[in-house]
Amino acid sequence: MTTFNHNKYQAFPPLDMPNRQWPNNNISETPLWCSVDLRDGNQALVEPMTVSQKRRYYELLLAMGFKEIEVGFPAASKMDFDFVRWLIEENKIPGDVTIQVLTQARESLIEQTFAALKGVKQAIIHVYNSTSTVQRELVFQKDRQGIIDIAVQGATWVKLHAEANPGPQWQFEYSPESFSGTELDFAVDICDAVNAVWQPTAANPVIINLPATVEMSTPNVFADQVEWFCGNVKNRDAITVSVHTHNDRGCAVAAAELAVMAGADRVEGTLLGNGERTGNMDIITMAMNLYSQGVDPKLQLGDIDNIITTISECTQLPVHPRHPYVGELVYTAFSGSHQDAIKKCLDRRVPESTWNVAYLPIDPTDLNRTLQHVIRVNSQSGKGGIAYLLEQEYGVQLPRWLQIEFSSVVQRQSETTASELLVPQIWQLFKSTYAHTEQPYQLADYNVNHGDIDKIQARLAAGIDLISVAGEGQGALTAFISSLKLYFNLEFEVVNFSEHALSKGTDADAIAYLQIKTATESVIGVAINHDILTASLTALLNAVNQLESVKR
Amino acid sequence: MTTFNHNKYQAFPPLDMPNRQWPNNNISETPLWCSVDLRDGNQALVEPMTVSQKRRYYELLLAMGFKEIEVGFPAASKMDFDFVRWLIEENKIPGDVTIQVLTQARESLIEQTFAALKGVKQAIIHVYNSTSTVQRELVFQKDRQGIIDIAVQGATWVKLHAEANPGPQWQFEYSPESFSGTELDFAVDICDAVNAVWQPTAANPVIINLPATVEMSTPNVFADQVEWFCGNVKNRDAITVSVHTHNDRGCAVAAAELAVMAGADRVEGTLLGNGERTGNMDIITMAMNLYSQGVDPKLQLGDIDNIITTISECTQLPVHPRHPYVGELVYTAFSGSHQDAIKKCLDRRVPESTWNVAYLPIDPTDLNRTLQHVIRVNSQSGKGGIAYLLEQEYGVQLPRWLQIEFSSVVQRQSETTASELLVPQIWQLFKSTYAHTEQPYQLADYNVNHGDIDKIQARLAAGIDLISVAGEGQGALTAFISSLKLYFNLEFEVVNFSEHALSKGTDADAIAYLQIKTATESVIGVAINHDILTASLTALLNAVNQLESVKR
Repeated sequence: MTTFNHNKYQAFPPLDMPNRQWPNNNISETPLWCSVDLRDGNQALVEPMTVSQKRRYYELLLAMGFKEIEVGFPAASKMDFDFVRWLIEENKIPGDVTIQVLTQARESLIEQTFAALKGVKQAIIHVYNSTSTVQRELVFQKDRQGIIDIAVQGATWVKLHAEANPGPQWQFEYSPESFSGTELDFAVDICDAVNAVWQPTAANPVIINLPATVEMSTPNVFADQVEWFCGNVKNRDAITVSVHTHNDRGCAVAAAELAVMAGADRVEGTLLGNGERTGNMDIITMAMNLYSQGVDPKLQLGDIDNIITTISECTQLPVHPRHPYVGELVYTAFSGSHQDAIKKCLDRRVPESTWNVAYLPIDPTDLNRTLQHVIRVNSQSGKGGIAYLLEQEYGVQLPRWLQIEFSSVVQRQSETTASELLVPQIWQLFKSTYAHTEQPYQLADYNVNHGDIDKIQARLAAGIDLISVAGEGQGALTAFISSLKLYFNLEFEVVNFSEHALSKGTDADAIAYLQIKTATESVIGVAINHDILTASLTALLNAVNQLESVKR
Repeated sequence: MTTFNHNKYQAFPPLDMPNRQWPNNNISETPLWCSVDLRDGNQALVEPMTVSQKRRYYELLLAMGFKEIEVGFPAASKMDFDFVRWLIEENKIPGDVTIQVLTQARESLIEQTFAALKGVKQAIIHVYNSTSTVQRELVFQKDRQGIIDIAVQGATWVKLHAEANPGPQWQFEYSPESFSGTELDFAVDICDAVNAVWQPTAANPVIINLPATVEMSTPNVFADQVEWFCGNVKNRDAITVSVHTHNDRGCAVAAAELAVMAGADRVEGTLLGNGERTGNMDIITMAMNLYSQGVDPKLQLGDIDNIITTISECTQLPVHPRHPYVGELVYTAFSGSHQDAIKKCLDRRVPESTWNVAYLPIDPTDLNRTLQHVIRVNSQSGKGGIAYLLEQEYGVQLPRWLQIEFSSVVQRQSETTASELLVPQIWQLFKSTYAHTEQPYQLADYNVNHGDIDKIQARLAAGIDLISVAGEGQGALTAFISSLKLYFNLEFEVVNFSEHALSKGTDADAIAYLQIKTATESVIGVAINHDILTASLTALLNAVNQLESVKR
């Protein structure tokens, strides 16, 4: 039995923001990205990456275009230390890329951090301590000043060690860790105190990173926090404001986006949102969100399948089929009305115009998804999707009257088998329904005499029998209709007929669709033949074959 | 090669909202939930649910406490039709539950919808048509008035058929489908036109459902849309405003939450966010978000494992390990500093007080997660987590000096094997490091003579030899120290010693921890014995055994 009881929790205290500005903004430029996959992401894995996985992942981040990459916590992990040494000694850091390393505000750790970085050209030293109310009271058991002392001492050590290690271009980053649970005035005080040590300038700014270490409120409140912080911290011009959101409430991407509207310049996150507990904010999703609004995401995401494979092989985490932009089902429409609308938009939109297709926020081909991924058929599907798939795959342009009829055949089949139907299965179902080759009567041969009146003499194979029929009329098909009416003693009329070539060129097969009605029945026949007349005659015979009175 | 190019997209047009109110609000009450799992969720499955799965899922929704459940699209699917009949004929709808059925605005479909509902006590008839710009222009090829005509005609048919089928308590719902892509003034116009037909009153309201059929903007913009709509639609008091968000940009939960702040009364969604493409908004996440703020979510989520099992067995979709609140990794802390902080908060917080534990937004036991799920050990872990696990599992209270030492042993082991260490493996590693039973010298037996001075005579087994040692001092341990110093010709001092019972009761085993230092070495020994003196002496001998000069 659980103790499910909401009364043990309190609401996040609201902020008073009389002059809130961020909801009036939008994001017209991509923030600075910093990947923390190799640190925050890695530390949260059941099995942290091996050396070779970490190297492979780092190469992926470079290939995607990341310019700032947090590569580890070298003073806390020998493997991270060795990885940083490898990056430097093997010259793996391009000139326009800055690595970032995390350290706590303790001197021995800071010293070892600088030791790990010996020989680097540029690096970000990221120092943090916890500032939230609960961390102060229960974990560190210090008051505000005690926590500020830790931060100031850490900042001082970082500065001194940087001065003692001249040469590299050092940048400093400070995180009031658990910012999302920190009183805003205190967050500003502690960052001001750190900056009083570091003395940043607009030409040589520091990074102040505001983590939602735990997501504790709706994302608009986090944006309020960021806007308030930006408006109250001293020396804002000398600060790159960074955010680092987590996904505990499922809103990490939203929080990062609204925070950028609220003034953040930089976003720390991971690919597909790996990270502690529910994960970090997902840079791929936010980058694609920007992309879909016409903003250059400053990341190369086109080779997404390779990106996903590398991520999931290194993290050993699955990609959910509904993961935005990349999951295997996210461009798929099973519903008939959705399929219909997609087909119409694709057919009717002006090519090269701004993307505007119902139910598809981006063009799936941007991420190497073909339209076959888009339209799939189950019992919820309609005529549009089925017709689209048959046309794409087999060149069949089902006439509308046949689309309606056939979609109910597909639906019945799909309900019976309780499963998705793949295109070859749909095609097979189509042929066995309308163009069955094992019909009672088959067209063996025929002779057409074209004059004022067209005359046909045909032979039908029926088991071992060969039956002669003959008729006449305006056109060979009409003549054949007469001959069948006569032979079978039937009355019917052709209510629908169409025919087209299945593919281009003179040797193309033709497909004929034909619907006949008697007083009591309506049946459809289809046939494919390299000869257009034979296709029509066979389609007619296939229809007649399905009449109750003809079935043997 | 992909055509990755952001220039094919345009930014979502901004709204002018000079008097925007929603960011000042918070959610102090849970909205009306409507589960659309059996309709929107089901239609998006590769293999839609079988009859028995659908029945099982419906029972789950009832058990969780849903009062409004969209059960299908009976006029579009025979299976849905049959399901609705089963619900009614088998009397499966409790008196306080209202089923909802979807239909397009076509008379034959509306007629069949009412046929499916024959005999129901109360039901919501949910009629929709597409209203977005792209749907109007490319799919329906109608102007605004043409689209309004479809809606008004549909609303009229719904009203007429309801009047023709008196008895049940009918409620009407209209969705301007693809509301998120519809000009706001047009959305208001079409809903006003529908309501002019339906004539709702505050006592007998209609539901107007605003779908983000495709998520097209940051969630704050959706909230703006909802606020604008609520402020401009006629007869607001007679309308239950509902939202139905999708997750294309990964922000469906955020959009629903901000929409409720913006005036929505009701939220349609699915469990774990199943649904078209990236899915619907996830009701479990939003409900738990409310719960974590002290708001009654009006759903029974305590039996979460059964809920998850039923969902994934019926949908055949996996639950991602980082899915908020329910994924297998979301209460897990691997990082040493996180584990430390969690341990301290759990130890120090006032029991029964409002939940306040670092890195744990809710108490995992609320959802049947034990603290063993919380703390797991890999190469990124620290002393706190390891100590916590050993204490929980084996009653071992590692002294702090040993926590620090042992955590580096664990880290090395974890880096070597590149894998998570489970608690039994950690315990094994602990024993083989400090309490190895195959040491060169083992304590065979001893005799203690307690007087003014304590005297010990002991025999050490060393391979096949039995060695006698003797010594004296203040206490038996001191005497044994003397005897070993003498026999091995060693100088060392005991720098740390502690001992405690492993579990309660008189027959409990004791565990002794002991660290000795020579001029050049520092080693640790641990031993467990039912006798406290034997444990101490053995711990000492285990430490001595590890000195370089003693190793054989």
